[in-house]
Amino acid sequence: MAVNSLRDALVDELKDILSAEHQITKALPKMAKKAGNTKLQNAFNEHLDQTKRQIERLEQALKSLNASNETEECEAMAGLIEEGEELLKKDAEPSVKDALLIAAAQKVEHYEMASYGTVCAWADQLGLSDISKLLGETLAEEKSTDEKLNKLAATVNPAAAPS
Amino acid sequence: MAVNSLRDALVDELKDILSAEHQITKALPKMAKKAGNTKLQNAFNEHLDQTKRQIERLEQALKSLNASNETEECEAMAGLIEEGEELLKKDAEPSVKDALLIAAAQKVEHYEMASYGTVCAWADQLGLSDISKLLGETLAEEKSTDEKLNKLAATVNPAAAPS
Repeated sequence: MAVNSLRDALVDELKDILSAEHQITKALPKMAKKAGNTKLQNAFNEHLDQTKRQIERLEQALKSLNASNETEECEAMAGLIEEGEELLKKDAEPSVKDALLIAAAQKVEHYEMASYGTVCAWADQLGLSDISKLLGETLAEEKSTDEKLNKLAATVNPAAAPS
Repeated sequence: MAVNSLRDALVDELKDILSAEHQITKALPKMAKKAGNTKLQNAFNEHLDQTKRQIERLEQALKSLNASNETEECEAMAGLIEEGEELLKKDAEPSVKDALLIAAAQKVEHYEMASYGTVCAWADQLGLSDISKLLGETLAEEKSTDEKLNKLAATVNPAAAPS
């Protein structure tokens, strides 16, 4: 398949993130269920609602580019989620498991920050300011979620390593 | 397998990043070869040298924890690299391919930023300040590489989307 222009690349990347977000909506409820810390549980559940709105934005961006919502599986996100699920299978103290869950979630957030950063830069370059603005909102949300996870880690890590 | 403590989790995560870094040393020469922009080529080659030093730091950290260097494949990095290699197979104008290469590299950098951020936080929590300081150097390098890629994108993207 050819990528003839930066616009083609943008469409491909939007579809890649759409597949990633769909995978995340399936993973988050499992992560919330495994979390011992109530605030962490809530954070995963809130991020699920946010992810659904982020999917709508991606669909809106693809529609404005006259592109379909059909996606191929994002293999990178599949790998990230597979790694997270392997972690969840291990026996661990609840507070250690919470620390592992935060680590896995921050890897997912960082993947998204890189991806949304890329599509915003490409959309800007192509003069597609509506798309850049719309997905810039999502980028800000992902950064904010990562910050929230940093704060939760400051509570969870001391519980995981009692002195 | 059990993760009985945050220290166990730290060892597991260090081995995960070590596997990721080894995978990156194999991917970077291919990326440098595919890059059309000379500065981008140089950036990949320089990052290869940096990655080799980062591997030494990880081995040093594992040694100080009396842990082996044996790793299982980091599936998340395998997915990221697989995705990048799929991109390289596509037909694309050289400047568009450079934009794709930068996008793929930034996803790798973000994975590492999340991972090193986690191990530094855990090492701090465990009072292992030598490890935190050592890997904090790597974290700073990964952030700096990501910034460098942002600057290169500002040159590559306009070439990929001529007005």
